Amino acid sequence: MIVCRTIVELKEHLYALSEGGKRSIGYVPTMGYLHEGHASLMREAKAHNDVSVLSIFVNPTQFGPNEDLDRYPRDEERDLKLADECGMDVVFLPTVHEMYPTPSKTSVIVGGLTDRLCGASRPGHFDGVGLVVSKLFHLVKPDRAYFGMKDAQQVAVIEQIVHDLNFDTIIVPCAIVREPDGLALSSRNVFLSAEHRAQAVVLSQSLDQARIWIQEDTMTAGLLQSRVKERIESAPDAIIDYVELLRYPSLEPLEEEELTYKLDAPVLLAMAVKFGTTRLIDNSLYHPSGGV
Amino acid sequence: MIVCRTIVELKEHLYALSEGGKRSIGYVPTMGYLHEGHASLMREAKAHNDVSVLSIFVNPTQFGPNEDLDRYPRDEERDLKLADECGMDVVFLPTVHEMYPTPSKTSVIVGGLTDRLCGASRPGHFDGVGLVVSKLFHLVKPDRAYFGMKDAQQVAVIEQIVHDLNFDTIIVPCAIVREPDGLALSSRNVFLSAEHRAQAVVLSQSLDQARIWIQEDTMTAGLLQSRVKERIESAPDAIIDYVELLRYPSLEPLEEEELTYKLDAPVLLAMAVKFGTTRLIDNSLYHPSGGV
Repeated sequence: MIVCRTIVELKEHLYALSEGGKRSIGYVPTMGYLHEGHASLMREAKAHNDVSVLSIFVNPTQFGPNEDLDRYPRDEERDLKLADECGMDVVFLPTVHEMYPTPSKTSVIVGGLTDRLCGASRPGHFDGVGLVVSKLFHLVKPDRAYFGMKDAQQVAVIEQIVHDLNFDTIIVPCAIVREPDGLALSSRNVFLSAEHRAQAVVLSQSLDQARIWIQEDTMTAGLLQSRVKERIESAPDAIIDYVELLRYPSLEPLEEEELTYKLDAPVLLAMAVKFGTTRLIDNSLYHPSGGV
Repeated sequence: MIVCRTIVELKEHLYALSEGGKRSIGYVPTMGYLHEGHASLMREAKAHNDVSVLSIFVNPTQFGPNEDLDRYPRDEERDLKLADECGMDVVFLPTVHEMYPTPSKTSVIVGGLTDRLCGASRPGHFDGVGLVVSKLFHLVKPDRAYFGMKDAQQVAVIEQIVHDLNFDTIIVPCAIVREPDGLALSSRNVFLSAEHRAQAVVLSQSLDQARIWIQEDTMTAGLLQSRVKERIESAPDAIIDYVELLRYPSLEPLEEEELTYKLDAPVLLAMAVKFGTTRLIDNSLYHPSGGV
């Protein structure tokens, strides 16, 4: 496994490994502190491409001024071990200066998809994601890039950028990986106290419950959201940032009165909930016609 | 010479001609109605690359609502003849629907460089340029892309995007090509009446004159701009949109009082002038230390 810290090294190694672009490149962009969710992406990249690349970069431009950039967890040694176990050929570990030698005057902004959910709670977040993903895609030139569906809005935003800007990369969304009790894996779970960790299971439980509620004859979009909120608030320390039911991938909101059993296109139930200072997100995609 | 009208065709031919990316691609993006200025770009692309590609696309997103999109001149037959004479291997001629099957939700926006000159006169113009150049670069994947310095601000903006987003393309700025009397070649010159065509020579004459004035001991940035404006207004029908002296490529304005003979970095004298309904632009780059 080759570890590159500069763009020049990365390009040289990728050019050699891909034989000048002839062999396919599978790419997993991450912010590190890798868990089994990332491992599932790496295994997919490994299985379906000639060359597999992981990047670890805690991208400052996607953090707001009052967010957790400084305390975002890091463990390079453990990350490299896991990447090696997953068969990565190249790991790209740039410094902030390598990625942003000067502040970027250029922005890559997606309208419409980014004014709700985490886009509303974290202004500028998806501008930072659009910028860094554009940069990384130009450096790695992946045939396929793998993203976890835990960040469903991120997947929708990146797919939109790829479509609108004609990037020659296929986005492969991968299923959320969960702990045995249902909690979605996240690098931020490490910050949860034992008490909050126990309560946090309410997120996935409410999503499972919603799978049942959504099929009820009289269930509306508005009622479903209220019920899910109520369920989450049964955990004493849960503070809801948002719970929203939206069409996917357009992320358009449903009418409050819309009957959920009549839905004819996929909908996303997405939530962000704080326990103490730790903000967790989770979601589930419900397909109509019995595929919920 | 291969003429492609769809993205699928373009990709297939480029893949074959470049031998999967092994042979270098030189690219000249244009809006057609080609003249000797474009021909000079095509000859450069041809001379320095294995495969040379021209695109002709009158990009609607870089025109404002009251601009000349509908009357922008077109002559596909003549363009293809010139492209063939210049030895282009591929000409890409997409429809608007091929480039924008759905309206783009994604924007590529450059801050700072775009709030002056044509960016101020044509709000949104450079957003459209950033968008279409990003799309075209992803489709053509050029090693080198050739742009005329007549659109100096466009060159500065595109170089900024390439730098900020890590595009793997070298931007090659090429000298302005002029008529024997000095008028910069432009697809829009065709709209000038005989009388306005005669008067329009005042742009290049004022730039030549400025080359002399700029070396005077007491010449300031403010005075130079006034003198150039006066010179342009000696043409009875000239209506000045802007005349500005700026650092290049940052496009930062100079202090009014700054002595021009003391300048230690390149400056751009740029102008946009209307004759009737036709807006012409021209500019000259002045290098310090005798290189003016």
